[in-house]
Amino acid sequence: MNVLLVGVGLIGGSFSLALKHRTDLTFGGYDNREEAQNEAFDLGIISQRFNLLSEGIKWADLIVVSVPVKAIRGILPEILDQIEPNQTIVDFGSTKAAICASVADHENRKQFIAGHPIAGTEHSGPSAAFEGLFRDKNLILCDTRLTEPGKLKDFEALATDAGFNIIHMDSKEHDRHLAYISHLSHITSFALSSAVLQKEKDGEVILDLAGSGFASTVRLAKSSPGMWSSIFMENKEMVLRSIEAYKKELEKLEALIIENQDEALEKYLEDGRKIRRILP
Amino acid sequence: MNVLLVGVGLIGGSFSLALKHRTDLTFGGYDNREEAQNEAFDLGIISQRFNLLSEGIKWADLIVVSVPVKAIRGILPEILDQIEPNQTIVDFGSTKAAICASVADHENRKQFIAGHPIAGTEHSGPSAAFEGLFRDKNLILCDTRLTEPGKLKDFEALATDAGFNIIHMDSKEHDRHLAYISHLSHITSFALSSAVLQKEKDGEVILDLAGSGFASTVRLAKSSPGMWSSIFMENKEMVLRSIEAYKKELEKLEALIIENQDEALEKYLEDGRKIRRILP
Repeated sequence: MNVLLVGVGLIGGSFSLALKHRTDLTFGGYDNREEAQNEAFDLGIISQRFNLLSEGIKWADLIVVSVPVKAIRGILPEILDQIEPNQTIVDFGSTKAAICASVADHENRKQFIAGHPIAGTEHSGPSAAFEGLFRDKNLILCDTRLTEPGKLKDFEALATDAGFNIIHMDSKEHDRHLAYISHLSHITSFALSSAVLQKEKDGEVILDLAGSGFASTVRLAKSSPGMWSSIFMENKEMVLRSIEAYKKELEKLEALIIENQDEALEKYLEDGRKIRRILP
Repeated sequence: MNVLLVGVGLIGGSFSLALKHRTDLTFGGYDNREEAQNEAFDLGIISQRFNLLSEGIKWADLIVVSVPVKAIRGILPEILDQIEPNQTIVDFGSTKAAICASVADHENRKQFIAGHPIAGTEHSGPSAAFEGLFRDKNLILCDTRLTEPGKLKDFEALATDAGFNIIHMDSKEHDRHLAYISHLSHITSFALSSAVLQKEKDGEVILDLAGSGFASTVRLAKSSPGMWSSIFMENKEMVLRSIEAYKKELEKLEALIIENQDEALEKYLEDGRKIRRILP
């Protein structure tokens, strides 16, 4: 089976590496960054390079789209226009509602699967890809009632083989939850990094005084700006709501400090600490 | 040499464990939580238990105070009142200006060393202590010109043996930097945890959708509420300033999303990403 990776970075690349044991699969790649395409070829992520997307589409049985979410929305209808009934197309974007809406009325909608791997690192590009990225991680598949059951079943078997657990969810529900559980973490990290970099011009001081706590909290600010600006814009409404809710919490905390409410402050922190019950 | 740990939790406990190879040292402990004292004894952190602080002080050559910063300020003058000229007292609190101010005029000030180990985890108590916590970590010593040079030199040798690199800093400078580089990270984590817990009542959903990114960003919200409420109040002015600066950054980000400024948003994230130069 021929698998075309549209986007050969961290996610697309790791999908290929996770399926390296599958000798029945051949991975090809299309990426508008020629350098990335060549790097993926050199790293053994793909064994075929396509300069034209249309050529890749003709060649493929399965097409996996792992590019920034805004680009997915642009490219997806174009791919669906060109595919034959035997082909399946999957996207691995981090937002799902706008992507699903963009192809809702497409005549080939039933050949499309909307996916979101709950896996990643703050690094990006083919060299960041690794075999175990998806091991025991969740793959959220959205609005799967709109996909042909046979194609869905085949893809789920492949994804399971790549290490994923499969979870089904409505695309709007997905975006609402992800705004809080993922997108907001990135917002708070980027803002923290900017606040600290503005204040501390001397990197040496940061290095001397930063414990593992700061490193951990600011880690997501190392993530790809293109990918994340695209996610924030695609999930704009929910992301803004999550920022509002977060600002309210921040202001509660601030008020307790201003008003010297030691006990209420400790109580507030106790409540925040309950996250331990979920993530021990 | 007899070392009295006042507070036998993560920090005090790890100091003892880091010096286990030093057969010339005997560790004793005083902790107003009797359970913690017994746990530290069972874990081999201390071999002597004191029910009265004054008894421990009489016994000790070196006194290491590792309790929440507010408690340090309360206990420190009391200890300085009781010590003999041969004794040294060190504190390991995370804020330094208020602590240094609280003993500035004490006649035994020169026997005191104000320290802050840039090391820790989100866990607390004797059972969280481990031997390698301080290995290659920085120990910030503040206002050391006010300490007797011989006592300072001896303690620095001991701290180095425990794994620390020693750095000297003015106590006010320390607190200003730490507000941004450490305290603010804790504020943002606690607020993130509260915002997510408020919105997502179903822990299962968080667990399904939380990648390593959320776990990393929210990790510090698992930290000790007593310790951190105390730190925020002790360093109130600087902490509030850091929250203000952070809120400005958050609002910049929010405005770029509201106004659909895709390019400026990506540029903002690029700037935040520069933290990679310091923490690769």
